[in-house]
Amino acid sequence: MQDIVSLRRDFHKIAETGWLEIQTTIKVIGHLLDLGFEVKYGKEVHTERIGVPKQAVYDAYLNTISLPQVSFDISEIIQGYTGCVGVFDTGKPGPTVAIRSDIDAVGLRESDSINHLANIEGFRSTNDFAMHACGHDGHMAITLKTCQRIVDEKDKLKGKYVVVFQPAEEGVRGGLSMSKLDIIGEVDYLLGGHIGMGMETGTIGVGTDNFLGTKKFDISLKGRAAHAGMAPDQGRSAILGAAALTLGLHSLSQYRATSRINVGQISGGTGRNVVAPNAELLLEIRADDNEILEDLDSRVRIMSKSTAQAYELEEEIVLAGAAEMFSTRHPEFVKETTDYLRAKGYKVFEKPSLNASEDISFYLNRVEKNAGRVMHFLFGSNLKAAHHNESFDFDESILPIAVNLYMDMIYKFNNH
Amino acid sequence: MQDIVSLRRDFHKIAETGWLEIQTTIKVIGHLLDLGFEVKYGKEVHTERIGVPKQAVYDAYLNTISLPQVSFDISEIIQGYTGCVGVFDTGKPGPTVAIRSDIDAVGLRESDSINHLANIEGFRSTNDFAMHACGHDGHMAITLKTCQRIVDEKDKLKGKYVVVFQPAEEGVRGGLSMSKLDIIGEVDYLLGGHIGMGMETGTIGVGTDNFLGTKKFDISLKGRAAHAGMAPDQGRSAILGAAALTLGLHSLSQYRATSRINVGQISGGTGRNVVAPNAELLLEIRADDNEILEDLDSRVRIMSKSTAQAYELEEEIVLAGAAEMFSTRHPEFVKETTDYLRAKGYKVFEKPSLNASEDISFYLNRVEKNAGRVMHFLFGSNLKAAHHNESFDFDESILPIAVNLYMDMIYKFNNH
Amino acid sequence: MQDIVSLRRDFHKIAETGWLEIQTTIKVIGHLLDLGFEVKYGKEVHTERIGVPKQAVYDAYLNTISLPQVSFDISEIIQGYTGCVGVFDTGKPGPTVAIRSDIDAVGLRESDSINHLANIEGFRSTNDFAMHACGHDGHMAITLKTCQRIVDEKDKLKGKYVVVFQPAEEGVRGGLSMSKLDIIGEVDYLLGGHIGMGMETGTIGVGTDNFLGTKKFDISLKGRAAHAGMAPDQGRSAILGAAALTLGLHSLSQYRATSRINVGQISGGTGRNVVAPNAELLLEIRADDNEILEDLDSRVRIMSKSTAQAYELEEEIVLAGAAEMFSTRHPEFVKETTDYLRAKGYKVFEKPSLNASEDISFYLNRVEKNAGRVMHFLFGSNLKAAHHNESFDFDESILPIAVNLYMDMIYKFNNH
Amino acid sequence: MQDIVSLRRDFHKIAETGWLEIQTTIKVIGHLLDLGFEVKYGKEVHTERIGVPKQAVYDAYLNTISLPQVSFDISEIIQGYTGCVGVFDTGKPGPTVAIRSDIDAVGLRESDSINHLANIEGFRSTNDFAMHACGHDGHMAITLKTCQRIVDEKDKLKGKYVVVFQPAEEGVRGGLSMSKLDIIGEVDYLLGGHIGMGMETGTIGVGTDNFLGTKKFDISLKGRAAHAGMAPDQGRSAILGAAALTLGLHSLSQYRATSRINVGQISGGTGRNVVAPNAELLLEIRADDNEILEDLDSRVRIMSKSTAQAYELEEEIVLAGAAEMFSTRHPEFVKETTDYLRAKGYKVFEKPSLNASEDISFYLNRVEKNAGRVMHFLFGSNLKAAHHNESFDFDESILPIAVNLYMDMIYKFNNH
Repeated sequence: MQDIVSLRRDFHKIAETGWLEIQTTIKVIGHLLDLGFEVKYGKEVHTERIGVPKQAVYDAYLNTISLPQVSFDISEIIQGYTGCVGVFDTGKPGPTVAIRSDIDAVGLRESDSINHLANIEGFRSTNDFAMHACGHDGHMAITLKTCQRIVDEKDKLKGKYVVVFQPAEEGVRGGLSMSKLDIIGEVDYLLGGHIGMGMETGTIGVGTDNFLGTKKFDISLKGRAAHAGMAPDQGRSAILGAAALTLGLHSLSQYRATSRINVGQISGGTGRNVVAPNAELLLEIRADDNEILEDLDSRVRIMSKSTAQAYELEEEIVLAGAAEMFSTRHPEFVKETTDYLRAKGYKVFEKPSLNASEDISFYLNRVEKNAGRVMHFLFGSNLKAAHHNESFDFDESILPIAVNLYMDMIYKFNNH
Repeated sequence: MQDIVSLRRDFHKIAETGWLEIQTTIKVIGHLLDLGFEVKYGKEVHTERIGVPKQAVYDAYLNTISLPQVSFDISEIIQGYTGCVGVFDTGKPGPTVAIRSDIDAVGLRESDSINHLANIEGFRSTNDFAMHACGHDGHMAITLKTCQRIVDEKDKLKGKYVVVFQPAEEGVRGGLSMSKLDIIGEVDYLLGGHIGMGMETGTIGVGTDNFLGTKKFDISLKGRAAHAGMAPDQGRSAILGAAALTLGLHSLSQYRATSRINVGQISGGTGRNVVAPNAELLLEIRADDNEILEDLDSRVRIMSKSTAQAYELEEEIVLAGAAEMFSTRHPEFVKETTDYLRAKGYKVFEKPSLNASEDISFYLNRVEKNAGRVMHFLFGSNLKAAHHNESFDFDESILPIAVNLYMDMIYKFNNH
Repeated sequence: MQDIVSLRRDFHKIAETGWLEIQTTIKVIGHLLDLGFEVKYGKEVHTERIGVPKQAVYDAYLNTISLPQVSFDISEIIQGYTGCVGVFDTGKPGPTVAIRSDIDAVGLRESDSINHLANIEGFRSTNDFAMHACGHDGHMAITLKTCQRIVDEKDKLKGKYVVVFQPAEEGVRGGLSMSKLDIIGEVDYLLGGHIGMGMETGTIGVGTDNFLGTKKFDISLKGRAAHAGMAPDQGRSAILGAAALTLGLHSLSQYRATSRINVGQISGGTGRNVVAPNAELLLEIRADDNEILEDLDSRVRIMSKSTAQAYELEEEIVLAGAAEMFSTRHPEFVKETTDYLRAKGYKVFEKPSLNASEDISFYLNRVEKNAGRVMHFLFGSNLKAAHHNESFDFDESILPIAVNLYMDMIYKFNNH
Repeated sequence: MQDIVSLRRDFHKIAETGWLEIQTTIKVIGHLLDLGFEVKYGKEVHTERIGVPKQAVYDAYLNTISLPQVSFDISEIIQGYTGCVGVFDTGKPGPTVAIRSDIDAVGLRESDSINHLANIEGFRSTNDFAMHACGHDGHMAITLKTCQRIVDEKDKLKGKYVVVFQPAEEGVRGGLSMSKLDIIGEVDYLLGGHIGMGMETGTIGVGTDNFLGTKKFDISLKGRAAHAGMAPDQGRSAILGAAALTLGLHSLSQYRATSRINVGQISGGTGRNVVAPNAELLLEIRADDNEILEDLDSRVRIMSKSTAQAYELEEEIVLAGAAEMFSTRHPEFVKETTDYLRAKGYKVFEKPSLNASEDISFYLNRVEKNAGRVMHFLFGSNLKAAHHNESFDFDESILPIAVNLYMDMIYKFNNH
């Protein structure tokens, strides 16, 4: 396989947003097959996809790219069943260790500044609608290089190695679907990590904590159009319903712990002199307690459905994203790991707070509930610009460090 | 029987508000029986009472009065089945003519000014909570005196004479119940009238038009109390629901014809630091079209029920008053009557507009739909103060004029 | 000049929407100059333009067309000062007679059906964004042909002839600006008309009545963006303000006469996890009474400004369209004209109701208030499809009839 | 002085609610004067009274009681300037130690059950509107008995002793006013405590923590009455404004830390057919951060004022109660005190959480900001029924324990 920097840049060039990671998935599968991993992909690696784009988006995108000739069936991938799971079994009894990497890019046009490294070195995104501005290209490179090390060092290892390449982490859309796979139920140890996040190159955040739970909803309301001047009583205004719903939803946020609600986007109507036949709301809820999140979810649905009825509208509410709250049940394992890594010479920072949502939380909770152990790292890396900025770039020297870190964890699990 | 002024003043003294006209009903029945009318009263003269006070109000009122000893059973009357229907049959084939009088007073404490006639002449209301400030005492005197004339002149008359003494016209609560009696279905001609209404003494408004339709609703919402600081998520605020409902209801008023909605009273909550477990709204709708009124009624109920659900509240909506829109289907009959009365020497004003609600509208519409003819008069009378004012008083010289008018109409119907 | 059908089709081909009638205005001016009219145009024919597109729209449009070489200065026209006023003075003392024609098209892509006459005969709109789907192309042809007749028959005529070619009647945006010109203040008689409107070819509606008053508003709200999860208190949600404003506005519609309010379009927000920094509402009010319209205008502005303050938002409200209520003060003149035209052999319908808004109302009211007389006609014409439909087409045989009608009116005014 | 139980029962008999503690204040002053304290009272012990009843309440109450003949001027006390401050100076240099006691009762009718101790022993409240159902009678007894001990043991003490008898703790109304007195600025050590609070008799909570900040507001809106059917546009509905305001206020609660808002009571309107001319809202806000509390206060005022303007209403917002958040700046002092008291044999519980609001917080914060030390205790006492219940009663055996505790603290401060 290419060296890790070249690998990362290859992914950077074909940046694709959530559920559209078609070229990306094909490339990952190719590498895994080359390494001798057993690979599953397409419909068999998904249970409940949310926040999937409309078919027209696929049609348009597929028109702009030429797909590589490969030896495996990509028909489900091009329908949006992106991502894959690779498995390598040493054949020796031992733990099942999983690594989860996200694979999608951000919906941004990459900077065309001549000072931007991707332009200097020629690895700028070829897709105007997408840019790896959050480091997921690096995550894939780290994970694939770790796969290579596992294969290379298989004689020293026991147990089974599972790598999950998950689509659509942006908007927390892909984790729900893949975290429910049977294979995640078998995992003893799960690893994951994120590049950047405000830490300088080389510092490793160990046992990231305080992942916020969140759900994203799309609500659409359908009313009845009528001439606002001549037949106002014949209409049922979806805008009026959306207004009442917005105020109602924002009255729900008071809980014993932190909870949030935000109607962040609204649109509706076809003309100023027409009683509006349609309106759409995009919203999210958050909580630092999964029970509160579920309770708020339920109240949002009641408020939405019944407010629509009050204004005689049809209503549809769609889950468009989700992540769970996560805070480890095993702080002693974080402590022990911190000590182990410090002893190995890493510059470590114990239990950093994420204070944001990431859908790796579904895997983290599932494995811990199954009596497994999990470890999420922050891979400190000096950034050229903030995450999700068109000039984002990270210091690639973190890549081999992260691979070593993963391998050191794997050896730790082997000796447990 | 006493003279008409003394009769009116007797009723004035025992002023009683809607559904509490206990002494009033007993007195009317006594007069009718004395005149030889057949009288029905109690439960048999009601079909669907609305806006009835709570039992505690009856208990309290009955404690303050001493009931007269009479020869008929008053047990249902004191339960709030007030009002009565008198029938006098000449025994000769002929039309059925009905007169409807309202009998209730206004919820006002009568003026204690020494300039107020009732104080000078000693016929002030003995009930602090009620005053005949709308002239219904006069209506009863006119109707009873007309009954006496009918009996006195029975040899010149044919057909059957029905007098309806209806409770609870204020708040339009009693008309719905009595207008549905079978006997109203047999009426060929219906007469009614109102004293005052801005016309000077002696002027007769003929064929009052433009009665507005209205419905009155009481909505009560029940939520769940909780400590607003410590457990806000355990509460369901009925005040929040009432607020959303108020705004929702006021968005419903745009129709092709005139329609109105008004939430006129609100109350709710038990303490500022408690999520409010209760809220009550008193509202009314109006329309100058009965179809719009029914449509608005239906939308109010949907809005109320579903908004309550949105805020997870229990809801109850009670019809507390109702009147129909009425505009005669027989303008030619109004014209003909105007000419007839002018020829008789009355100072007449044709087809005045009421622009308000009166529950005689139920009878007017029912009789006209049955191919009958109806005539509502305004009995012009100089007023000392506006209707519903504590110093209201009318010029009693209109009373005998109104009796003559009714008798002239009766002779007209006899000769038809 | 070409024949009237060819003239109408020429305008049809260069259909342009409101304030973008650049080619149209140049063509009208050319014809008027050719006929010997004195022509004013550009900034001098405007006082207060409303609902004008943004500069970017002009830049884009001008890129797509090639402007004709003409002998007059078009620099202000291409900035959006469209429309013009032509004046022909006979030199003889007499009345000032004005005709008002609208010139803009509807924002529609014209049908490409092979059955659509414009496709068969080759006069389909060359602009995809605009189509003469309301007959204004016909109005221009009628008015220009009438100009030709005036010039041709000038020896038989006295007084002064003013023709107003007004832009942006769709959305009632252009009338306010041109109706305030000084020259309208001098008009003794004003004529106008509209093709189609549900009357069959040849029927002439005389003295159109019941023009509804309306105002169109664009409200924009600016809040403060913040991360909805991490710093909700730092944000000020423009969507919340827009929701409260929508409900507040819809509570304002109850008046003694017909009045309407409709928030017909809404949009806002930048992402579901961001407190929305912006929101926009498009709304309209209507009333059949100019005083109510002004009162409602004032209450809308108070509601908008103060609701924005309540949610700590910046607010801007822009008048984007306006028309007055009009009902003639001279029904006897309508009657007299109807008789005159009937005698001339026209198939007339007296005083049809428009029940819609048209900004010719500003001119109609101004001239009547100045003691002038006005006459608005409906030019009955069988339609292929409804007004504002992509397949709209009218029966061109009405065009010469309308010219004759205008000339007959002019002769009537000459003989007055 | 009487024994402590008898003293407590004397106060229980004359229970008076906030700002009406007239008999109570007179009795406290009498005891303090008897003990040789210098006493200040009336207007000189108040700076900013909030939540004071209307004059009519004073008039009515004064009619029902007979005031005792005393040697001091009670004219300001009967105007509602209740409470007092007693000072005892040993004349020896030393610390200034303050004790704060609240004096008001709860607005409840005391149980008349024969099982209720106050009925058995004959010390039931003589005021039907008030009952010491929160133990403030005990607080006064403890504080006065401590005063007696201070005087008795003055030879062993140095410094100055200040006792603050504060009215209107219920509804957090009196603390703001008295905590701003100059003398509080001189305090080195401040003591306070509360009986009951869920701890069993004899257990002492040391260094109560987590007092929530709160503000109580009364908002009144004035609109314009109008007949809802005939002149809806002439009215300005205060109920509509109150509804919009309620929803607006409830949208304000999302902050980085815990914050709360609750509209707990609403009322408005004069009749269902009248556009409501008035509405009143009672609300509270809370926060566990004083900065958030102030920010929310400011946003509530903006929302209230501007929403009123949007609906063209007059608005008045009155602060009706307030308490600060308090969490000690000196946890080491709490620890040290806990150890000291445990060593003295008390059964102690360190740093209990109040999780509620108490206006002693104003004094606690002021003294700590002035570099003083403060100590709030919970005096565990088995209860017969919950606080604020009509059958509330506490175990009086806690009273002498609390006096000893205060004295042990005073000796600690003397030896510091």
